[in-house]
Amino acid sequence: MKLHSVNLQKIKITDEFWSKHVNLVKDAIIPYQWDAMNDRIPDAEPSHCLENFAIAAGRKEGEFYGAVFQDTDIAKWLEAVGFTLAANKDPELEKTADEVIDLIAEAQQEDGYLDTYFIVKEPERRWKNLCEGHELYTAGHMMEAAVAYYQGTGKKKFLEVVLKLADLLCDTFGTEEGKIHGYPGHQEVEIGLIKLYQVTGEQKYLNLAKYFIDARGIGENYFLQEMSAPDYKNIFPEFAGYQPAYSQSDRPVREQEAAEGHAVRAVYMYSAMADLAYEYKDEELMESCERLWKNIVQKQMYITGGIGASGILERFTTDYDLPNDCNYAESCASIGLAMFGIRMANITKDASYIDTVERALYNTVLAGIALDGKSFFYVNPLEVWPDNCMDHTSKEHVKPVRQKWFGVACCPPNIARTLASLGQYIYSVGEEAVYVNLFVSNETEIEIGREEVHVSMETKFPFDSRICIKVKNVPAAGIKLALRIPAYAQSYQVCANGQQVEYQVEKGYAYLTLTEEIEVTVTFEAPAKFVRANPNVRADCGKTAIVKGPLVYCLEEADNGKNLSELFIPTDQKIEEVQSTLFGGIIQLVLKGKRMQETAWKEEELYAEHPVTLSDVILKAVPYAYWNNRGMGEMTVWVKELI
Amino acid sequence: MKLHSVNLQKIKITDEFWSKHVNLVKDAIIPYQWDAMNDRIPDAEPSHCLENFAIAAGRKEGEFYGAVFQDTDIAKWLEAVGFTLAANKDPELEKTADEVIDLIAEAQQEDGYLDTYFIVKEPERRWKNLCEGHELYTAGHMMEAAVAYYQGTGKKKFLEVVLKLADLLCDTFGTEEGKIHGYPGHQEVEIGLIKLYQVTGEQKYLNLAKYFIDARGIGENYFLQEMSAPDYKNIFPEFAGYQPAYSQSDRPVREQEAAEGHAVRAVYMYSAMADLAYEYKDEELMESCERLWKNIVQKQMYITGGIGASGILERFTTDYDLPNDCNYAESCASIGLAMFGIRMANITKDASYIDTVERALYNTVLAGIALDGKSFFYVNPLEVWPDNCMDHTSKEHVKPVRQKWFGVACCPPNIARTLASLGQYIYSVGEEAVYVNLFVSNETEIEIGREEVHVSMETKFPFDSRICIKVKNVPAAGIKLALRIPAYAQSYQVCANGQQVEYQVEKGYAYLTLTEEIEVTVTFEAPAKFVRANPNVRADCGKTAIVKGPLVYCLEEADNGKNLSELFIPTDQKIEEVQSTLFGGIIQLVLKGKRMQETAWKEEELYAEHPVTLSDVILKAVPYAYWNNRGMGEMTVWVKELI
Repeated sequence: MKLHSVNLQKIKITDEFWSKHVNLVKDAIIPYQWDAMNDRIPDAEPSHCLENFAIAAGRKEGEFYGAVFQDTDIAKWLEAVGFTLAANKDPELEKTADEVIDLIAEAQQEDGYLDTYFIVKEPERRWKNLCEGHELYTAGHMMEAAVAYYQGTGKKKFLEVVLKLADLLCDTFGTEEGKIHGYPGHQEVEIGLIKLYQVTGEQKYLNLAKYFIDARGIGENYFLQEMSAPDYKNIFPEFAGYQPAYSQSDRPVREQEAAEGHAVRAVYMYSAMADLAYEYKDEELMESCERLWKNIVQKQMYITGGIGASGILERFTTDYDLPNDCNYAESCASIGLAMFGIRMANITKDASYIDTVERALYNTVLAGIALDGKSFFYVNPLEVWPDNCMDHTSKEHVKPVRQKWFGVACCPPNIARTLASLGQYIYSVGEEAVYVNLFVSNETEIEIGREEVHVSMETKFPFDSRICIKVKNVPAAGIKLALRIPAYAQSYQVCANGQQVEYQVEKGYAYLTLTEEIEVTVTFEAPAKFVRANPNVRADCGKTAIVKGPLVYCLEEADNGKNLSELFIPTDQKIEEVQSTLFGGIIQLVLKGKRMQETAWKEEELYAEHPVTLSDVILKAVPYAYWNNRGMGEMTVWVKELI
Repeated sequence: MKLHSVNLQKIKITDEFWSKHVNLVKDAIIPYQWDAMNDRIPDAEPSHCLENFAIAAGRKEGEFYGAVFQDTDIAKWLEAVGFTLAANKDPELEKTADEVIDLIAEAQQEDGYLDTYFIVKEPERRWKNLCEGHELYTAGHMMEAAVAYYQGTGKKKFLEVVLKLADLLCDTFGTEEGKIHGYPGHQEVEIGLIKLYQVTGEQKYLNLAKYFIDARGIGENYFLQEMSAPDYKNIFPEFAGYQPAYSQSDRPVREQEAAEGHAVRAVYMYSAMADLAYEYKDEELMESCERLWKNIVQKQMYITGGIGASGILERFTTDYDLPNDCNYAESCASIGLAMFGIRMANITKDASYIDTVERALYNTVLAGIALDGKSFFYVNPLEVWPDNCMDHTSKEHVKPVRQKWFGVACCPPNIARTLASLGQYIYSVGEEAVYVNLFVSNETEIEIGREEVHVSMETKFPFDSRICIKVKNVPAAGIKLALRIPAYAQSYQVCANGQQVEYQVEKGYAYLTLTEEIEVTVTFEAPAKFVRANPNVRADCGKTAIVKGPLVYCLEEADNGKNLSELFIPTDQKIEEVQSTLFGGIIQLVLKGKRMQETAWKEEELYAEHPVTLSDVILKAVPYAYWNNRGMGEMTVWVKELI
């Protein structure tokens, strides 16, 4: 049996590090996104999202406006609201959400169809452009949202809407004659259908998800067939010269050797594949998941947990190609990586997956949102020089400051739903065991068999590595507590009620058997240290990055002046860890560095023989998650090493 | 009086270094391009260029095919043929060219109009899309070609065709009421019109060129007005969100502070501006030329003479933004830089301009063409890792191997015409002086006053820095010989008839007064040396490049193995210069280096603490001009310096 997550209604996060982000969801992001979807944010690109639903529902007259997948904004918002309401009652918010759900229900067509772009703008083109139309992607987000809302509030109306939609999909897609033998151009519906199966037990939803996965890359490519139809209408100009590998449909998923194509599409698909591999006991599919996971984390992932090295088409490129200043590394892709990782961890009970989940969450996902919750990064570079992030150039996708809201607004609501459901990553639950994955202060009730075990965690992680876990109401038969031992932990120790105890280690978890109420204290050291990239990563050769536990640090112009490319770090030094009040309290890293001197250079000299001379400087590093919270400036994660 | 170039009919290049490239023009490129334009190159994109003319001339039925500026292929080919016929009689080639000219004349419309795209495909849209239509750009290339063909053969037919076209332009464009107040979206016609003025003495052509330059960026932007017309038809998808700065039309040319926008457009325009500044004694315009030149060579030029740092839109970006692996640095842009530079040198008699012309010619322009003359680079990166130059990614414009022929074939014929007219860069001629700019073995007759002075040069430059110049038939009144002293020359010495002589130096030229037949020997040293980039060039901080005289060297995988990013060079060493038979004979550079060892790294490790260890290696460098003549592999100009 695989592990599952805790009931989000029953977990209360009380963490110093995470609460300020998690609380942003209800205090800032949900209201802000609500304003955005209602086009009330000055200077931000209009969303028109709710307007589209009002037009589709016949409440208003007007034209569809926005991206073809504009509906997913409201879906991700409702999903975040569902998660938030699970933890915090808020009748006013719930009323607003219920009204939105009424609107969505009104916009739904007789037969269950639900997608305002095609309802309002191109009703005759329904299901005719699976490659670019995003109908199934949108449906998937609606399903995820409805499940979250049902689980957070107990209300079924939204769930019924998406079940009607899912029934329509079951009648429309599949191998049977008369059905469309297609599959989504952007994977996501598979995850939604699997969640519907988990909530309803209805096998046909799982079967449809399996169909969508199995059909990819079989026979003549479906999307190329679509595109060759005489009445095909291209939606995205960049889809000219479409490559099936972009949507992982160039070959059957079981034959895919490396992560390829659009990064978000890829990890959403791999997440569904992991679920299906488990449900169908499909070992070949599980091997694919493991192979693709390894390819990502061993060859194609930034140290920040970012994925998708190409600025164009937001996609994977080739092994070890990890440029720092022109990549995409979309926030949504790191969220998808966390989704894939937690599924793999829950199936395999292997804590190493969580090392990557944690890397993505503590670095790229957090960097995606400003400390005030009001601006966002889509693209997460590891090196920024604001001057060259210019419009109409190769780096125009790299924004040196977070943006208010985007016309194509996938990342902000995706970050919101991820923060709002952080609880799912903290623990995993087995038949007789509680798995502690992330070190985040919280209190929760966890159902083990028929008992509700009370678990609470207290810690100042990641800036301090002492974690105190209290377990109460332990069943008489006993349970196991499985504590993740992170790869970066040194001098790892576990005490039970103040006494050092023995534990068994399996796949990165320390297993303790509990038979009564207990207080477990985990201590380890995670000092700041220098790391390097595999030399095959050409972009990082001769450079070092500084990490502390799961946190990747960076140098910012605010602390270190202009031109971070002039800096060198001698790595034979101890990094000083200093408590700072910056960003609401962090450990700042202070270290000795060298800076190339510019004195020999005249302004008119572009190339000359002047030898390099170095001067001593003191460098300060801050967590990458918090970069660009002090105005625009240069930033770099990788710094030249003084060799 | 400004300087002018020698008569190409009277210069014979006999140089060891250059002849093999120059001879390619008639032996390989002209026949190959002829085949290409006739769609006879297997596996190359079709050109359809001659077919378009045959259709426009009514000789054939069919559709226009190719880029909107496809006609310029034949123009540049004819220009190269004109230059080639000037130096070498070739009746068969001349016959072919005459037939092509007959075809062009037949395609020309009654009123002088000549552009097969608009004649065949969209006659009703003539002059309606100056921004994207390239009609004036194409006209400019026709004019340059016709002048070269007239000067090379003495035949007037093609010249008459383009004069009729130029007359139409004079009647069509200008400030007068009833005329179109527009100007070219891609500058080039200005250069063509100025050449027509120089050949015919007809002032109206010069005036029209001046109008086109002066009109740019005045008042409401002409191109944005065009685009707002209800019947406007976009040609290039990438022109969505058009910025006038892209075509240097965002402000008057006299107010342009830095090189901006598309690099080829920019330098073609600056070339025309230099000519006009001289002709109209326009000091303000001359100041603009000097300011823009300085901005390029002091802030925005690669060490190889490449310009245009952005892979997208082939444009300038911002000062000091010179990424090595994702730039454009189009071959045509370096040709345009040489065109701009020789004009500035001829006006100012300042040899420093030639340092840049020489840099562009010896590195980027030569790199643009394979040693067999059959494949070409458009994009000239300074660092290549073939694995990541993938389709549908941010580096898809970077080709790790030269391409056979392109659908948009600007660079190959542009390189051909440049090589074919190399003589114009070797000497400049004043009223009483011969200026020696480039060190290239040749023999020529130069008209000074009424005399024909015989000048011959013998050298093995750039691999040896001894240059022997014989001047015969010196007029009784005497002449001056102005010898460029390159910035890289050390221990510079001039001997006349074996005796060391004094000379006067002014703006980088050594001036000697000759009164009789003389043999002048120039010797200097140009040892291989390490240079560095201004530290503001973030991409090159901590790196060194190796140069010898005008040649930039590079490391190739063929000599140094895979992963050039692992290499370090200690710069406190003497670089060994070794005679090699590679590439028909070069000086190869041999030096001591260090390579990061990979032994500590396991394949599954992407990030780890392994300290860097270095091992000794011997490195070999070859001229950048010759890279990728030994199959596909990594290449880099800038190498990490062991600091």
